[in-house]
Amino acid sequence: MRNVKLIMEYDGSCYAGWQRQENAMTVQQQLEEALEKLCGEAIQVTGSGRTDSGVHARGQTANFMTSSTIPPDRFSFALNSVLPYDIRVSRSEEVSMDFHAQFSATGRKYRYSMIINPHGTAIGRQYYHHIIPPLDVQVMKKAATDFIGTHDYAAFMAAGSPVKSTIRTIYKSEIVQEDSLLHFMVIANGFLYNMVRIMAGTLIDMGKGKIEPEGIPKILASRNREKAGFTAPANGLTLEEVYYDKQKRLDTPDGMY
Amino acid sequence: MRNVKLIMEYDGSCYAGWQRQENAMTVQQQLEEALEKLCGEAIQVTGSGRTDSGVHARGQTANFMTSSTIPPDRFSFALNSVLPYDIRVSRSEEVSMDFHAQFSATGRKYRYSMIINPHGTAIGRQYYHHIIPPLDVQVMKKAATDFIGTHDYAAFMAAGSPVKSTIRTIYKSEIVQEDSLLHFMVIANGFLYNMVRIMAGTLIDMGKGKIEPEGIPKILASRNREKAGFTAPANGLTLEEVYYDKQKRLDTPDGMY
Repeated sequence: MRNVKLIMEYDGSCYAGWQRQENAMTVQQQLEEALEKLCGEAIQVTGSGRTDSGVHARGQTANFMTSSTIPPDRFSFALNSVLPYDIRVSRSEEVSMDFHAQFSATGRKYRYSMIINPHGTAIGRQYYHHIIPPLDVQVMKKAATDFIGTHDYAAFMAAGSPVKSTIRTIYKSEIVQEDSLLHFMVIANGFLYNMVRIMAGTLIDMGKGKIEPEGIPKILASRNREKAGFTAPANGLTLEEVYYDKQKRLDTPDGMY
Repeated sequence: MRNVKLIMEYDGSCYAGWQRQENAMTVQQQLEEALEKLCGEAIQVTGSGRTDSGVHARGQTANFMTSSTIPPDRFSFALNSVLPYDIRVSRSEEVSMDFHAQFSATGRKYRYSMIINPHGTAIGRQYYHHIIPPLDVQVMKKAATDFIGTHDYAAFMAAGSPVKSTIRTIYKSEIVQEDSLLHFMVIANGFLYNMVRIMAGTLIDMGKGKIEPEGIPKILASRNREKAGFTAPANGLTLEEVYYDKQKRLDTPDGMY
């Protein structure tokens, strides 16, 4: 048996998220069906975590055990020949038997992308949440840094998600502007359910003047979901990278995304 | 009567091009149906030129005559409320009665975008032609500049397109690289049918070593379509801008796209 790690990119527009479901097509199902075709055996894939319906990934990581004789570094090419074009495997490699895409992860980087103009965009509309001006980007930039540190993120979690602890550590949290595009980039040791989308929605509500500019410490302290902003739509969100090395997640330079 | 000019963006993935057809949906048909809804009269729209099936636009220009009382600068908002999301009107304004989107145009800018990597891309795959390495980008960069000037482009035109003259003037022609992305940018007073896609295909064939690196002057002189490269796929092509001012088309700085 071998343990094979995959780095994957997908356009989540047409999928009900990562995780297998009874009545909807998911990325995990596409991947498992492709592996069964290639290996002639049923294979269960472990992802680094779920992504929601409509969320994209540029660096989702997964692993699976197989007795296939396909060389581990050739799995990317073999899988891309049978997967649909909205799912690509950018790299595959053999890893030690104790590697687990979810439990070995030490951090994750997400990007939430927005386009700020009166009319939205046709080209790339699948990847940007559209916001009509005015929007106070300076307020959002400053507020984004208030997330950095170890905090209780209960206020930034969708209701009804059972977790042991709502404490997470955020290493980077910043907003980068490129003309009419805004990117909210965030790196943490882990995220709660819908956490990035609620953080993005809260920053947007601040940019729109609906929440006070310095409000993040108070919202965190409240542990109350109702104090935070709206859940920004799934299409703006991309899982950029999953870290398995404690140092690497801290090394991403500011503004270098 | 008023003459209204529109600047439009569209994702051509789901359309059989710009121009109205009997049995397929086109951008012009969507636009004319939206205008009829808004104005309560049949309206014929003139585009700056056709774009092929699957080709995108960030700056397609069109005009139409109307007796509607909608203020000309509000047409963009009104149209965007009824058009599908893959077509957006970014600006509308009243122009003089002699303005004609096609005949008044003095130049056009196109971009042909490629992604160079082993596996292609899932995110944005609608907008990039995928090329598997190796590719000699330096050869392509140098060859792109050989198009600049006034030449007979008969070798770079799809067969069977009736035109009076195959002579065109190219003002800018360059390849810009951003990591794994390549953009071939070209500005001319006008283009023949499929000309940009054949130019792009010829540059790719040169990068792949299938056509000699200094071959463009010889291909031009041959006036023979068979000497040029393949017709690069439609999805990489975007109509970026249409010029109505002779000076402006020359003012785009190199590398500033």
